[in-house]
Parts: sequence; C-alpha cells; structure tokens
Amino acid sequence: MTAAPASGKVRVGVVGLGRLGKRHAENLAFRVPGASLVAACSPVEEERAWAREALPAPRLYENYADLLADSEVDAVWLVTPSSLHAQQIVDALRAGKHVFCEKPLSLDLAECERVLAEAERYPHLQATIGFMRRFDPSYKDAFDKIEAGKIGRPFLVRSQTTDKNDTEGFFVRFAGTSGGIFLDCTVHDIDVARWLLGKPRAKRVFAAGAIALHEGLRESGDVDNGVAICEFEDGKLAMFYASRTQAHGNDTHSEVIGTAGALAIGHNPRANRVEIYDANGIRNECTPNFFDRFEEAFLHEARAFVAAVQGGPGAAGSGAGSGVQAGATLADALEATRIGMALRQSLQTGEAVTL
Amino acid sequence: MTAAPASGKVRVGVVGLGRLGKRHAENLAFRVPGASLVAACSPVEEERAWAREALPAPRLYENYADLLADSEVDAVWLVTPSSLHAQQIVDALRAGKHVFCEKPLSLDLAECERVLAEAERYPHLQATIGFMRRFDPSYKDAFDKIEAGKIGRPFLVRSQTTDKNDTEGFFVRFAGTSGGIFLDCTVHDIDVARWLLGKPRAKRVFAAGAIALHEGLRESGDVDNGVAICEFEDGKLAMFYASRTQAHGNDTHSEVIGTAGALAIGHNPRANRVEIYDANGIRNECTPNFFDRFEEAFLHEARAFVAAVQGGPGAAGSGAGSGVQAGATLADALEATRIGMALRQSLQTGEAVTL
Amino acid sequence: MTAAPASGKVRVGVVGLGRLGKRHAENLAFRVPGASLVAACSPVEEERAWAREALPAPRLYENYADLLADSEVDAVWLVTPSSLHAQQIVDALRAGKHVFCEKPLSLDLAECERVLAEAERYPHLQATIGFMRRFDPSYKDAFDKIEAGKIGRPFLVRSQTTDKNDTEGFFVRFAGTSGGIFLDCTVHDIDVARWLLGKPRAKRVFAAGAIALHEGLRESGDVDNGVAICEFEDGKLAMFYASRTQAHGNDTHSEVIGTAGALAIGHNPRANRVEIYDANGIRNECTPNFFDRFEEAFLHEARAFVAAVQGGPGAAGSGAGSGVQAGATLADALEATRIGMALRQSLQTGEAVTL
Amino acid sequence: MTAAPASGKVRVGVVGLGRLGKRHAENLAFRVPGASLVAACSPVEEERAWAREALPAPRLYENYADLLADSEVDAVWLVTPSSLHAQQIVDALRAGKHVFCEKPLSLDLAECERVLAEAERYPHLQATIGFMRRFDPSYKDAFDKIEAGKIGRPFLVRSQTTDKNDTEGFFVRFAGTSGGIFLDCTVHDIDVARWLLGKPRAKRVFAAGAIALHEGLRESGDVDNGVAICEFEDGKLAMFYASRTQAHGNDTHSEVIGTAGALAIGHNPRANRVEIYDANGIRNECTPNFFDRFEEAFLHEARAFVAAVQGGPGAAGSGAGSGVQAGATLADALEATRIGMALRQSLQTGEAVTL
Repeated sequence: MTAAPASGKVRVGVVGLGRLGKRHAENLAFRVPGASLVAACSPVEEERAWAREALPAPRLYENYADLLADSEVDAVWLVTPSSLHAQQIVDALRAGKHVFCEKPLSLDLAECERVLAEAERYPHLQATIGFMRRFDPSYKDAFDKIEAGKIGRPFLVRSQTTDKNDTEGFFVRFAGTSGGIFLDCTVHDIDVARWLLGKPRAKRVFAAGAIALHEGLRESGDVDNGVAICEFEDGKLAMFYASRTQAHGNDTHSEVIGTAGALAIGHNPRANRVEIYDANGIRNECTPNFFDRFEEAFLHEARAFVAAVQGGPGAAGSGAGSGVQAGATLADALEATRIGMALRQSLQTGEAVTL
Repeated sequence: MTAAPASGKVRVGVVGLGRLGKRHAENLAFRVPGASLVAACSPVEEERAWAREALPAPRLYENYADLLADSEVDAVWLVTPSSLHAQQIVDALRAGKHVFCEKPLSLDLAECERVLAEAERYPHLQATIGFMRRFDPSYKDAFDKIEAGKIGRPFLVRSQTTDKNDTEGFFVRFAGTSGGIFLDCTVHDIDVARWLLGKPRAKRVFAAGAIALHEGLRESGDVDNGVAICEFEDGKLAMFYASRTQAHGNDTHSEVIGTAGALAIGHNPRANRVEIYDANGIRNECTPNFFDRFEEAFLHEARAFVAAVQGGPGAAGSGAGSGVQAGATLADALEATRIGMALRQSLQTGEAVTL
Repeated sequence: MTAAPASGKVRVGVVGLGRLGKRHAENLAFRVPGASLVAACSPVEEERAWAREALPAPRLYENYADLLADSEVDAVWLVTPSSLHAQQIVDALRAGKHVFCEKPLSLDLAECERVLAEAERYPHLQATIGFMRRFDPSYKDAFDKIEAGKIGRPFLVRSQTTDKNDTEGFFVRFAGTSGGIFLDCTVHDIDVARWLLGKPRAKRVFAAGAIALHEGLRESGDVDNGVAICEFEDGKLAMFYASRTQAHGNDTHSEVIGTAGALAIGHNPRANRVEIYDANGIRNECTPNFFDRFEEAFLHEARAFVAAVQGGPGAAGSGAGSGVQAGATLADALEATRIGMALRQSLQTGEAVTL
Repeated sequence: MTAAPASGKVRVGVVGLGRLGKRHAENLAFRVPGASLVAACSPVEEERAWAREALPAPRLYENYADLLADSEVDAVWLVTPSSLHAQQIVDALRAGKHVFCEKPLSLDLAECERVLAEAERYPHLQATIGFMRRFDPSYKDAFDKIEAGKIGRPFLVRSQTTDKNDTEGFFVRFAGTSGGIFLDCTVHDIDVARWLLGKPRAKRVFAAGAIALHEGLRESGDVDNGVAICEFEDGKLAMFYASRTQAHGNDTHSEVIGTAGALAIGHNPRANRVEIYDANGIRNECTPNFFDRFEEAFLHEARAFVAAVQGGPGAAGSGAGSGVQAGATLADALEATRIGMALRQSLQTGEAVTL
C-alpha cells in the first residue's frame, strides 16, 4: 500500500500517452517539483517509444494492471478513453493508488454512483476528475474575488465552450460515443457554474440546439450548437452555450453576475498581447483550441493534485475547506454528468427536465 | 384626410411630453429636416408649458381627440402610457393620420390583433412601433453586414437588456402593469433577434428567473433577473438575459452568430472613448441608461419614419423590401408580444411553452 | 454694429461652403437652437446653389465684403482657405462681427500677432479658432476629470494625429502651402496638450521625421511621418506623432499622465460598437477620417460659440474662468502656431529649438 | 576547456541569487530540458542556504573564481550587480565558459568595447546579454509577423517602460549607480526598437524629462519620467517613454508602425483574462511589475541560450541568420548603451546629440 509516499515526492504513473497524455506526462516529469514521474502505460508502441525519448526514464507498461502492480507508484494519472475511466478509477483505488482522471467520470449515472460508493471505502486516497478550468489563473482569480465578496452574492453564471469549426468534422465521427455536445463540452461549464456559485444542486434544465454546419450529427441526435438554462435549488441560475462551429477560434469564456458586480473571464479569447492594425481595422488573433488556451491550467492542476496527495495546503479535491485550488471531486463529476444528461434529454424531448 | 402632406414636410403632432416625449419632440422639431412639429398634446400643464418654451410654437392640445381633429397634422407620435397605445393607434388611423407609437403595442394579444386588423384597412398609412434599437448605428451596421453575407447564415442571437440597479426600485412599483421583465425589457431583444435572423416565427420558449435584490417583485410574480431561450421555426435560436440589478450601468448588447463568423454589438457598454488608469487598473465608465445609450437611435428612428411617410427610400415600417432602416411593423410588435407573453408563462409554470 | 443680437438668436453668416463649410452651415441652420443661419458666402456658384437647396433660405453672397456689410449678421463663420484667415478675421472684427475661424489662424507669426493686436481693440467681440477637439465629448470628459483632480497633477501629454494613407497623395500637392505635417496636423495635438496641461508656454522643442511612402514630399522639405517632443516652462512635457500613412484609418488619440493616474482618449479609434469575429480573429473597424471622428465635436463647438456670443455660461473662447467648453482663443492659436513652426525648424535643422 | 558539453545537457552555474537570480536558477534547474544546473555562486549565506533547499543539489560557491575553476560548468549565468558584469564576462570567456549576463553590459562605453574585443577571441563561446523582452511570446509574435512582411517595411517604433510608483523610492537611492532612467529602463526599449527595425544604428537623439514625484532625484540629475526620440541612419525612428510613477502598474508596451500596417504589443497591460464590472465601470487589473510581466520571457530566454550553446536551431545570440529567438549580442548591448548614454547627455544639456 503506497498511499503515503516514502520520500517527499509523489511517484506518479501516467496512463495513456495521446496528445493530452503527453502533456500531462511532461508536466509531471519536469514542471511539478513535488512529483516524480516513475511510470507510464500505453498499449501503443509509438507512444511508449516517445516516452523513452522524452521522459526521464519511467518504467513503461503495456497493461494498466501491470502498472497498478508497481508498488513504487503512489498515484495514477488516467488520460485514457472515457469509457474506461470508471473501472480504471475503481481498480486504482483498490490497488491503493491515488487517482487523477481526465473528465468525464462516466456517461452512465449508475456507474458514476458505483465509483463514488467504492471511493468512500478509501477516504485516505485522493480521487479527482480533471476539470482543469478551475486551475486556469484567470478563473482562479475570479473565484478568489468572489470568495472575497467583491461581487456580493453570485447568482448567475453564463459560460460557454465553443470550438473553432473543424472542417474535417472529427467530432462528428465521435458523436455516438462522446455523449453529445452537452456532455462533451458543456460539462465544463456546468462544473464552472457550480464551482463559482457555491456548488448548488440543479433543479430544472432546458436545452435546445441547432445544426449549423454538420448535418452528419443528425443521425446521432446531436447538434453542433447548443444552448441551455439550468436552475439551481437556491434560486441561482446558469446559461450555457456550446458550439463546434466558431470561425475565430476556441472561445471559452464565463461570466459570473452577483448582487454587487460581475466578473467576466476571457471575454475576448486573445491569443496573446498583440494587436494588428491593418486595412480591416484593429484585431487580435484568438486562442486556436482548448489545448493552448488551458496550457497553464493543466500544469496548475497537476501541482494541486500532487499537493493534495502530500496533504499540504491548497490540496486538490479535499473538499469544502480547501480553498481555491480544490479540484473537482467525484461527487462534482457525478453532478456535472447528471446535469449534462438532463440537458441531453431536454434537447431530445423539447421539454424542461426536472432533476 | 391628411395622408399626403401638402408640402414636402411631414407635419407631426407629438402626444405625451414626459422625458421620452420631450426627446422625440425636440428631435422632430429641430433635427429631422423632413418634419415639422406642428402640434403637441399633453394633459399636464407643466408639460405644455415646457412645449411653449422649448419648441417652435406648436399648437398645444390637452386632449388627444382635439389633436386628431387638427387637419394640419399628418402624423401622430405617441409617447403615452402603454395601456393607451392600442386604442390611440386605432383612433389615429381612423383620423387618417400616420402613426408612430412607442413600444409596446399592447400587452394583450387580442388587442394587438385588433389593431392589426384595423390597420389593414389603411394600407396607405404608416404605422410603426418604436423598437429604436434597429436604428442605433451599430445595430444597423451589424444588420448591414449580415445582409452582405459577412457572417454566412445567421442562426443564433444572444441579446440582453440590463439596467443599472435602481435602489429606489421604481420598476417594482410598476411591476403590476409593466407586464414583467420579459415584456418590459426582453421584448427589445426579441425584436432584435427576429430582425437580425430574418423575422422567423417562434416555436418554443423557456424562461427562468431570480430575485437578486428586489423582494417586492415576488408579489407580482416578477423577477429582477430573467433568462430565456427561444427556438424559432427554421432551426434558429435566441438566448436572452434581462436584469434590473447591474452594478456598472445599462449594458444592452447583442451577438449574432453565423455559419462563417459572428458580430457583437456593444459588448462593452463604454460611456465614451475615455479610459481611466488608476490604482484599480484600467477602466472605462459605462452608459448609465437606455436613454443615453440610444440617443442617436431615437433620432434616426424619427428620420426613418418621416422618410417612410414621404415614401422615399429607406422608408420605415414599409415592409420586407425597404432595407435596413425599416422600423418594426405592427406585425413585428405582435410577434414580440406573443413571444414575451410565452416567456412570462414559462417563468410562471416552469415548463417550456410551445407557440 | 451688431455685437448684441436683437433677438435671442445669434444671426450667423457662413463663409466658405466646401465640405467642412457645408457641415458648419447645416449645424448652424438646424442643430444649434441659439443660432439662425441668415447668410452664406461663396465665390463658387455650385456651392451657392447647394445653399439654396439645403439651407433655410439664407441670403447668399459672392463676396466676403458684401456679407460683412449685411447689418443683420451678428457673427461670421470662416471656413475659407488658410491664407485668408488672418485678414478675414480682422475685417470681421472691424465690421463689428463676432468671428469663428477654422484653424489655423495663420502660418505667419507676425500676422498672428497683428490679428491679436487688432482683436484687443474689440474686447466685446468673440474671436475663436476652431480647434474642435476640445468639444469632442470624450476629450471634454477627460478635461473635466482632470479639473476634478482625478489624475492628480497632469504633467505629460502624448497625442497623435494620424490619417489613413491617401494613395492619391492629395496632401502632397498641398505640402507647399499647408505648412507641413506639424503645422497641418500636430497643431491640433499642441492645442490639446496645452489645454489639458493648463495652458503652459513652450520652452524647447525637438522634431524628427521620415518619408515612409510619399517621396513627393521631399521637395518641399516635408515628411509623411513626424515625431516631436515639446518641453513646457513648468516642467511639463508633450510627445507628438503625426502620420499621413496609416493603414487602419484616422487614429487620433491622446493620453494625459498625471501624478495619480492617467487618461487615454480614443486609444482604439473604433468606428462604432461592433466587433467582428472571423477567421482572422476579433476586430473592430476604425474611424475613416477626422470628418467622421469629430462630427459631434463640430456641433458642440458651434453651440459653445453661440452660447459665448449670447454671454451665457459655457461661453466659448471667453478665457480662463469659462470652464470646459472654452474654445481656443487667438492667443491659443498663436501659441500653437509658434510651437508648430519651431517643430518645423527643428525638423529641418536637426537641432532642438528654444522658444 | 568546457565549450562542448560532454553529454547533451548544458551544465550551468548561476552567479547571484537575488530575486531574479533565484528565478533564473529555478528555470534552469526545472524548466529547461537541455540544461543541468550544476553550480550556484553567491557571497550571501542566506542565498546559498536557499539554493541548498530549493535546487537539485548544485555545487555551491562563495567566490566567482571558484565557480569558474569548476571544470564541469559549461556556462555561467550572471545575475550580479551591474558594475561587475563586464569583468565577470571577460573572466568567464577566459575560463572557456559560455556566458549569459543580465543587462546592462556596462554603463561605460570603453568597457563595453573592451568586452567585445575580448569576446572576439572566443568565437566558439556564446555571450549574450539578457534583454528578455525579445523572448516574450507576444514580442516574438510581433517580430515574426514583421519578418513575414505583415506590416510592410517597419519604420517607427514607439516603446515604453513604465513602473508602478514605488512610494518608498527604492530607485531614488540607486539613481547614482543605475545610470539614470534612460540607461536603467529605456535601454530595453532601445533594444526592442533596434531588434524590430532590423538593427539600425542611431544617428541622433533628443531627450527630456520631468520629476513628477521624486524630488530626491534632482541631486543626481535624474528624472522620474523621461521622453526621447531616436533617429536611425536609414530614416527609421523611435520614440521612448520611461516612468517610475505610474498609478496602475507596470505598463511596458511597444508599437511598430510599418508602411502597410502596425502592431501593438501589450497596449493594455492586463494582469490576466478577468474583467471586473462594478460601480466604477468595467476594468482590468494590470501587471504589477516587470518580474511578473516577463515571467515567460525569462524562461524562453534560458531555453534559447541553452539551445544556442547546443548549436541547434533557434540558437540565442548567434547572429543575423538565427531567426527570432536570437538573444542580444554584446554588440547589441554596446549599441543600446551608446544610445542610452546619448539620451542621458541630451537630457542634461537640452541639446540633440549626434552619435
């Protein structure tokens, strides 16, 4: 049992080495002082070859079970296909490992609940779902300002996740398994809204959508633009917008409106600090995708998780008292999935859905 | 019968000389070259006294019927209490006058329809409802860019009407007669959405709301913050936000999202071109209220109406072919009221409402 | 002698009906309640024909002397070629008329001084030079904030006048008579700097320039981009930039830096409130030229001058005590010319010039 | 002789462990994959104690000579008092070490030239001065766009280095040794201007200044606000502004104006992506100091230097052909000092200074 790392360093094994897995691996290897990347797992030989070159000599595994059997791994870092998440989390906890898992926890509510029930048996182990937006410095600054009372009582969040149009329609092919636009994209906004509004529970939702460009989605009942309203139990509200078809870039932003002011986070998704003056006017370029937009967030997320495992202040996922750097708990992920599924149901039925 | 003005000038009589009536009167008297303000009507002596001082000698009436009997009035300009609008429009048309009327047409759908039926009998008379936002230079520029195909096919509008918090709660006292936040505020956004999306008909709406500050609204079933979604028949969508409780000012803005780009109108409601650098950062002040924000719009609205009466190009309210300066027709006003009432019903029932 | 208008209205005669003259004429005819446009003068038949159509029946003159002889003209409004200004002002004053004159007073310092000396003999007559920027609502707001102490003691102004590149090089043909870029463009910034800094006198200047695009300027010793520093007597400073070659539009803006904060006026020369989202990013279009940028300023300038003639509060050109709406006096214009000529001398010699 | 590192890693010794030295040390230790921080040097015991705790076990030296004698150090990283830079660079080169040195090279031109002469004897060794602004992603993006011809021929740079007012006047006490505002602050803008304009040589400069708040500077002939113009040999221009007294934060920004467009870098020094809506308007907070503003730049600078030592593409300081990531050479630093000293001379004499 490895829950208490022998040295000060948390020994991490990364599972999954796709584009995002590589980023997590590099962060953990080089940019998180409290972590030591000791193992990596991928069934893909090219990915393991990359790890051999780019990482500081982790032990490499083809099978997840073998990595779990490695007694010198304190924590696993799951960047695997969504459908594997739930069981892999359970397996990690049973093997005595802390676990960080990319979102979503699961697209099946019963499965989400099964993971929560299992996790309750291991209260000494961290289990965090990767809603990285909480760790973006600007989102965190907004959270801190709200906590400090700068906008009075927050009661409304407007949040959007919109992607630059992918003319190749990559996401169309995955529409069947992604859970649709609300579970794939809006789930981030749901988590942001709950986090900024004090973790209220949802009471009722309504959603609608349109296919602007990708007719191929019709067959799976999905849309490429979706709008939604979520009412929470304590009179708080959220509005969401998700899109796959933006012309200008990835435009992820949020607003929180309170009784004494409001905060906007990322209203103009500037690529950097440059403005271009030409015959078309004055413009800025935009962040091309979430991967670039949230580069810093992924790093801070890793640091916070490692701090949580180490038990220090600013621990990730350690509940209500832990302050701004708390990552999403399994319960947060369950609630986000619950709301996302209700949005999908509303989209499909045209009716408001009561939770 | 005065429908065809004898000289080139349209002879206008203003009815109602409150704050907004005074503005219309001054615009028509001094800033609309094609108009001649020849009469004004108010039951309030102070208002008529103001007119004697400030305007170029219009004939002054206490009673609307007397003004309608004035054969040298070609058009009436109604800036009267909302509950009078419908009958006053009908009376004006029957007296052979063109009629401009501030919004709303009526909060009663049957009454709206009665006015439309009556107006069909006078096709040679202009009858326009004052949705002034269409005449704001920035809204008009957006409309023109959409017409020119700059953003592809527009399919989603997000629009908000939010007021600076009135600590005296003026609007609370009027909650019983204003029709509530959606009919009082969002009705502008509804008109903007339909105008920018090509005048689609609504299919289904959902609304929710919260009382952030003004508990006095609870008794009339109203809210001080409302959110809504509107689905139109052709797969187009709108999202609305209305608020009475903003800290920073009147923040009226709209976005139109198309298949090839998007336009935002007034995202930051700058009071002017000044930015202030101080210990709190860099800031701009905001437009305090709609009256200041839409000063230019009211003027252009008056010019367009007068041009419409004169039958020239850019005629207001003259239907589909008249280009960007067309004011809202009675049919537009009816549709806006229909949607606004459905939003109110949705707010009260918690259900989506099908139109 | 007509200095005291018989009625409340100031009876104005406009002299010169080019593009800017037409604007002034229309403002005075229709948009300045205290003014009555009773006469207009132009040697060009087309311009007089325009006046017959567009204006409310002013008396039309071919010769300035005839207009001056019109006893029912209280004030003349000079929008004539720069080389005529000085003598026309003197003639107007001698005829007992108030006089508004477009900038510059003169490009000859001795002539400026002669006009000032003459004007001292007519202290009851207004004589104002048209530095309209003072009347732009944003510049005026900045002035008011400075007066209210919002930025502490202002000590540095950075100001620029830059035009969209004119590929036809109109200004190149006028380089011989315009006085060059500093006297033609920067003179506005000089006036703004002095106005915002409390009317200090200049002590020393340095200027440099470059020809970016218009080689034809070389022959007259002019440049199409010029930069300058001006030191004032009380330790205050100004930096100026003038350009004829901007790609994005007319970009006239100013900053005032004080000991407790700073103000920027028009940093982004937005054409309106629209932002465009497309594959190139997010952009706003820019004001195309000074004529559009300062449309409101020209109107407020006319109102202020007329108020000054009427002797009311907010009088234009009535000296130190008159508050924010004071137009530039002849002395201000003389000082602006003096500084502008020193800049030209510095450009030509490469040396700092002491005033 | 250690110029060719045995392994792939460049073994670096950091000299000086003040605030900036600590940052460089941490970057080199943890965030520059190609580097290995093997040694650190400081005469201050507390700083060495910090190094023992925070860094991965470098060898620690009290004396620079001892570090230079360490044969397992390939490169030294000087973050020492300015007056030591020149001799320490020479000593490093003589010891066969690559050398990175914080700016300035020296405030003495003869000394600068002596270092250049010495460095010519070691062409295989990197010697770079730390003008980190070149490595800021936004500055680099602007540089790349210029290289790609996006703004035509660049001919004018406006650049400023302004600090938040330090009420304790730290810099006042160092005014005697800092070289004054132009050599301490503007030297960065000088380097930026030359870098963005294609490394032109200066021909003539003029400077002026004011003491806005810190009277204590008078004794050393320094100012707390300075403005300057620099003319380059090929008709290119630069304008500079430096300030110690800003209210809103560190506001370091630059503009490059070309014949076909312009670029602004950092016009609004946003602290992050948050905007605050409250009763004062809409605002963003600002970067508090250069240390935070250029956090990324310091990291990229280190990576580029290490890449240069390794001889790969994107090598720092390796001359004209090396592309955007080239750090400032000793010759660049000499030219920046030469211009900065001329600015100081101009400030003191009130005359333009020809170089």
